[in-house]
Amino acid sequence: MPRLQILTPENLESVVRNLPGWNLAANGKSISKIYKFKDFNAAFGFMTRVAQVAEKMDHHPEWLNVYNRVEVTLSTHDARGVTEFDVKLASEMERLAR
Amino acid sequence: MPRLQILTPENLESVVRNLPGWNLAANGKSISKIYKFKDFNAAFGFMTRVAQVAEKMDHHPEWLNVYNRVEVTLSTHDARGVTEFDVKLASEMERLAR
Repeated sequence: MPRLQILTPENLESVVRNLPGWNLAANGKSISKIYKFKDFNAAFGFMTRVAQVAEKMDHHPEWLNVYNRVEVTLSTHDARGVTEFDVKLASEMERLAR
Repeated sequence: MPRLQILTPENLESVVRNLPGWNLAANGKSISKIYKFKDFNAAFGFMTRVAQVAEKMDHHPEWLNVYNRVEVTLSTHDARGVTEFDVKLASEMERLAR
């Protein structure tokens, strides 16, 4: 299953460079970002849009919401690391947060 | 502002007894529960219904979602503890999770 292959450290660095605000976990096994919105409604509206994309991809985020803040962590459980699914979902989040 | 008064330890114990699956934090300053649903769709559907109630109450949860799991923590920031707002929101969540 080549699509579930985890990204190499070199690829990961370049991926994170292209995703503003995203960080690679110290153990290299996930990427994360803290989004801040105007208020709860804006934050939850973002989550609702992302939820639809995540469900369509069958790839889901780990996310914590406190009022206007959404802390997202992405990794691919089956691959125990960051795969192209995470990069795709992060890119979609960037698009949906705008 | 009596409505923002934090609950006494005695009241809190009785509140938590009446909210199945809810726990009082060790420091007594929040209540929490881990909800598990059939899948992501069911979990996020629950969150969507709760979000509407929370917005109406102007009282919002801290919650973490991972696939079918929703970990909720409730406290009243301004009162630095658990108030009737948290009890009300927890009760609404119980209703909406059914």
